[in-house]
Amino acid sequence: MISEKMKPLVNNNSAIRAMFEEGNQLREKYGAENVFDFSLGNPNVPAPAEVKTAVLEILEQEDPVFVHGYMSNAGYPQVRRAVAESLNRRFDTNFHENNIVMTVGAASGLNVALKTILNPGEEVIVFAPYFLEYGAYVNNFDGKLVVVSPDTETFQPNLEEFEEKISDKTRAVIINTPHNPTGVVYSEETIIRLAEILNRKQEEFQREIFLISDEPYRELAYDGVFVPYITKYYKNTIVGYSFSKSLSLPGERIGYLVIPDELEDSENVITAAGIATRVSGAVNAPSLMQLVIEKCIDAKCDVEYYDRNRNALYEGLTELGFTCVKPQGAFYLFVKSPIEDDAEFCSKAKEFNILPVPGKSFACPGYVRLAYCVSYETIVNSMPAFAKLAEFYGLKQ
Amino acid sequence: MISEKMKPLVNNNSAIRAMFEEGNQLREKYGAENVFDFSLGNPNVPAPAEVKTAVLEILEQEDPVFVHGYMSNAGYPQVRRAVAESLNRRFDTNFHENNIVMTVGAASGLNVALKTILNPGEEVIVFAPYFLEYGAYVNNFDGKLVVVSPDTETFQPNLEEFEEKISDKTRAVIINTPHNPTGVVYSEETIIRLAEILNRKQEEFQREIFLISDEPYRELAYDGVFVPYITKYYKNTIVGYSFSKSLSLPGERIGYLVIPDELEDSENVITAAGIATRVSGAVNAPSLMQLVIEKCIDAKCDVEYYDRNRNALYEGLTELGFTCVKPQGAFYLFVKSPIEDDAEFCSKAKEFNILPVPGKSFACPGYVRLAYCVSYETIVNSMPAFAKLAEFYGLKQ
Repeated sequence: MISEKMKPLVNNNSAIRAMFEEGNQLREKYGAENVFDFSLGNPNVPAPAEVKTAVLEILEQEDPVFVHGYMSNAGYPQVRRAVAESLNRRFDTNFHENNIVMTVGAASGLNVALKTILNPGEEVIVFAPYFLEYGAYVNNFDGKLVVVSPDTETFQPNLEEFEEKISDKTRAVIINTPHNPTGVVYSEETIIRLAEILNRKQEEFQREIFLISDEPYRELAYDGVFVPYITKYYKNTIVGYSFSKSLSLPGERIGYLVIPDELEDSENVITAAGIATRVSGAVNAPSLMQLVIEKCIDAKCDVEYYDRNRNALYEGLTELGFTCVKPQGAFYLFVKSPIEDDAEFCSKAKEFNILPVPGKSFACPGYVRLAYCVSYETIVNSMPAFAKLAEFYGLKQ
Repeated sequence: MISEKMKPLVNNNSAIRAMFEEGNQLREKYGAENVFDFSLGNPNVPAPAEVKTAVLEILEQEDPVFVHGYMSNAGYPQVRRAVAESLNRRFDTNFHENNIVMTVGAASGLNVALKTILNPGEEVIVFAPYFLEYGAYVNNFDGKLVVVSPDTETFQPNLEEFEEKISDKTRAVIINTPHNPTGVVYSEETIIRLAEILNRKQEEFQREIFLISDEPYRELAYDGVFVPYITKYYKNTIVGYSFSKSLSLPGERIGYLVIPDELEDSENVITAAGIATRVSGAVNAPSLMQLVIEKCIDAKCDVEYYDRNRNALYEGLTELGFTCVKPQGAFYLFVKSPIEDDAEFCSKAKEFNILPVPGKSFACPGYVRLAYCVSYETIVNSMPAFAKLAEFYGLKQ
């Protein structure tokens, strides 16, 4: 009874979600404290106190017809202005409210962006490893996903292969930095070279190529690493942002798109993005949460907590003989599987109540992702289990 | 730069929205109290007090990681259970939590339903007048919209023409009762005949036809009119619901789909609807509002207020010589234009600071929609303006 397009999705129902359910079963069997579930990117750090304060203030002070009512499909103008001004303050940009379209999280934002610009058969390039849902989003609009293979030395994008894969059908490129699943932050040098290639290829094919920067982890960066603001390097950039991680609000579905004036035909693209938000069924980003964002635009979740987790997990695992690039952002560690088959490694890990996600779920087999947005205690308590796993595979011997 | 599919949408940007902006301009010029804006279905009755109480309780008592976190794509199980139980209590149905998929409002719910079941080229039947966005939703999945012409005597669906228009390509039928833009409630007799036709045609074409019942106005019904619960009359029914009107939460984007066990292949359809919610970018319905719904499942907005508006506007206008079917539900009056060209009539009305929506925006020219979800004072104060308009057209003379 289901549509042809949905059938493969139903058959391969997200491995990450399946693991989430499996985790629940293990927790029931062994007790939550004895299961080391690193599978889901669900922030464990609570939303900052400002969020609750903002909700209470809004409900006390504002008319409920306003708070819960419709507004422009792109969002409340004052919220979009607050977002634009915060970006300008922090990144020395020149956005105004019209450059901002509030969205139902970043996933919805990416869908709105793709609906706005992508025609059937056009190509969207992504860099492995990548969040597999990008494939579903591109497929929503009958585009074709083109995957650039990973540079497993650095997990910076493989720009030689990228350049070769740009064709006269390329409409967009999706990047994600800080990066899921590796935690790598794309360097300024990488971004400059990427922009150079795109400009050259736009010229060659006489056609615009949009760079979609998916940035839910922008604020989760460590060691003072520099996270370049992409619109400053390439004019046809659309930024997709979410407050899911930075304010620990993943369930609330609140984010935005940035569509700069410099983008080709930007006025039409901005109008179309508002309409795409409407006809896709979202209509607008949730109203109360928009107003919360206005008040909490510069609030931050406890990044130190993730940083401590990062160091504990990275140091613990490398000491045991596991290898991985030290992440500078997000809350993931992308660990090399000691055997070729990452799914088999995950099965073995599960025997020790450790739940990673296989790298093939990110188009990068031979690795596994550990999401360290868990309690610090989970990391500390998981170490003996990881030690047994390392021993099983004869690491450091 | 925008996709081919978006171009016509950008060109014909929703007439209703455009009028909303126009209304803002008139308000600025003449003062809000002198503009009679009947254009937008934005509830003016505030959300019931239970909503605020629920938010405060949830924020006081629950862990923010839970309140704002991810849950199953279909929604929190306890929320879906509360919805199912409320439906069972009120409509003597037998739903359980798995029959409910929480959605980002009804518009997102309809998109999820269509994504789940519709293949490119398949037909979806609607009854004029209808909410034009249905066309955009069907177009999102490359379906073909088939429009049954209106029965302007009663605005019940034209079932003879409906039967003729069902083909071996028909995959779904969308109904909406209480109805936008006429306020008509489909009678039980209508539903029984509709179901009979669908069953016969399913048999004839050996193929399932889904009845999608879009019900955001279910609770806005007057004079004790009976609003049949559609799943009880036709087994392949999917209900799309929203709390936008019943709890005055349109900006919050919270609603649900009901996919009954009796529906063909229901288990797969339910799974696919959850996945469609995810890959469409919504991921899940906003988390805090889901928890609010659990607490407010039987709360009601002030329906009496709309009822008073309905009577005042209906009686006022018919007294002035305008004609329309008396609405039994929703918050719309569908008034016959005194001249053939409803757009011209709307332009004239605007000269008296009255803002209706032309019937052609609902595929039913020769009529205009008045949304009476406005203050009672607006209706009272608009009467002299309507009187001048009636006089201009020589009504009752």
